[in-house]
Amino acid sequence: MATSSTALEPLAIGIDIGGTGTKFGIVDRVGNVLFSSEMSTRKHAEVTSFIDELYNLLNELIIKAGGIGRMKGIGVGAPNGNFYTGTIEYAPNLPWKGIIPLAKLLEDKFKLPVTLTNDANAAAIGEMMYGAAKGMNDFIMITLGTGVGSGIVANGKLVYGHDGFAGELGHTIIIPDGRLHEGTGKRGSLESYASATGVRLTTLELLEKSDQPSWLRNVPKDEIDSRKVYDAAMEGDELAKEIFEYTGKILGLALANFVMFSSPEAIVLFGGLTKAGDLILKPTRESMEDNLIQVFQNKVKILVSHLKESDAAILGASALVWEKN
Amino acid sequence: MATSSTALEPLAIGIDIGGTGTKFGIVDRVGNVLFSSEMSTRKHAEVTSFIDELYNLLNELIIKAGGIGRMKGIGVGAPNGNFYTGTIEYAPNLPWKGIIPLAKLLEDKFKLPVTLTNDANAAAIGEMMYGAAKGMNDFIMITLGTGVGSGIVANGKLVYGHDGFAGELGHTIIIPDGRLHEGTGKRGSLESYASATGVRLTTLELLEKSDQPSWLRNVPKDEIDSRKVYDAAMEGDELAKEIFEYTGKILGLALANFVMFSSPEAIVLFGGLTKAGDLILKPTRESMEDNLIQVFQNKVKILVSHLKESDAAILGASALVWEKN
Repeated sequence: MATSSTALEPLAIGIDIGGTGTKFGIVDRVGNVLFSSEMSTRKHAEVTSFIDELYNLLNELIIKAGGIGRMKGIGVGAPNGNFYTGTIEYAPNLPWKGIIPLAKLLEDKFKLPVTLTNDANAAAIGEMMYGAAKGMNDFIMITLGTGVGSGIVANGKLVYGHDGFAGELGHTIIIPDGRLHEGTGKRGSLESYASATGVRLTTLELLEKSDQPSWLRNVPKDEIDSRKVYDAAMEGDELAKEIFEYTGKILGLALANFVMFSSPEAIVLFGGLTKAGDLILKPTRESMEDNLIQVFQNKVKILVSHLKESDAAILGASALVWEKN
Repeated sequence: MATSSTALEPLAIGIDIGGTGTKFGIVDRVGNVLFSSEMSTRKHAEVTSFIDELYNLLNELIIKAGGIGRMKGIGVGAPNGNFYTGTIEYAPNLPWKGIIPLAKLLEDKFKLPVTLTNDANAAAIGEMMYGAAKGMNDFIMITLGTGVGSGIVANGKLVYGHDGFAGELGHTIIIPDGRLHEGTGKRGSLESYASATGVRLTTLELLEKSDQPSWLRNVPKDEIDSRKVYDAAMEGDELAKEIFEYTGKILGLALANFVMFSSPEAIVLFGGLTKAGDLILKPTRESMEDNLIQVFQNKVKILVSHLKESDAAILGASALVWEKN
């Protein structure tokens, strides 16, 4: 175990790679993010230039935090990140195609052990160590952002599956032959509806389909997003409320299916869409209960993560370092 | 540990309770069913009379097998069986309503430790110990009989969920607002389509909806079952083949969703419908692959259980006795 030569407690580095940006920071054992920063993912067409910039920026934080000797390891959350192989494989939202040996690249650069998993799995571990799922052996984490991610914990352990890719619940088909997902080419997946992207598409569809008056008709089409729908709904806009009802209905149906799979104590929701609060949570809960068979009804909590959004991704990724040891 | 006073190896009792009948037997450590028999479940309106008859019949086998001293314990598979509490809860297909403390009732009667779980979970443990899933850490067992049951193994352990009821994949909703399930009142569940009951209903619907000539039109409606559809398909009946295509398409879609949940190494199928072989397996495989995102494609085996059908249920239940110890 490579700790510092000083008596200082070891720290973990957390890196969360998203399609647009990458957040990273240095975290202590109890979950304080001591230093953090971020950079663009998108502008790096090559993973090597991405790693170079990340190395330079992260090194500044490492020096501030007491030097490389204090760092126990690096945890990385990334879309399509494979826990077993340390590779990112065919991530539709990242600029780097094919199979990227990310953990290896980082190990070579930083000379530290690297643990990688998908971003939502990292978030689940963060919730289990520091958040809403503290002490739970069975729960499901769902991140509702631009896309829908998930991490599943059963018998107290993250479910990685035989190949490290378990927990792609955003891609489960909820409405057969439903809405096309541009990234995957599949129809009717949860992500096509219950993400920020999905809410935008639902809004455009409903505006097109009905003549119902709505404040949203004043917004240029390319500026419509889930935030504007939320603002409209809070002003009492009926169409905007209907959009969240519809989204919650589909999300709740999906959650019911997940519950009948692993019977979790709770489902922890995280991400932009949860800011709509009961506008989306109420129809989600109702639809989940409606679709559950009796034995599961009125048992499963739907919780919203209370981790600070700016920290949560870094926290989750850093938690991988302690989890492994 | 209560073993016999002789030097004989200990044995396990396996009991599989179904809606129609109950199978039971005595099994050795390596999976030989030494003695077995069966009785009616349905005719017992009260669970106490069921236990009395089971006790009398099972006692005959116990005596043949060397007496109660050789029995290490009893494993029970039952619909809606709860591993944690040893109770059967609200099983729609059993004559006994509400919550039945079955493990306790059997313990009091036999004076042996009793482990209970749902029938498909028991089957999964049987496959892991003696069958197609030997040595696998991540797989899903699906039983396609009158209904659809399931048992999920992740990280080498059965997924029971926080309340013991995980793995009710037959009740996941695959076709929202689809076919009504008489037992649960829900619409569009996997069980409404991919079970013997489902195949019968699909047949009646297709016969009604089209004028397509079919041998099945000669069968009185109340005699139509999945076996007759199989026979017709084997004779080249196009409508009968279409019925299996349709069933496989829905089953494959459901399997894709399950794969995106826990990423199993294999899905093990068991039960009456699997006798249709490639008539149902081919469209199932194709539909599963069609609905999987790239990272899961061409990886997951669909296997058919090769355990002897008459033994499998007893084997699985008896495996619980060793599993626990």
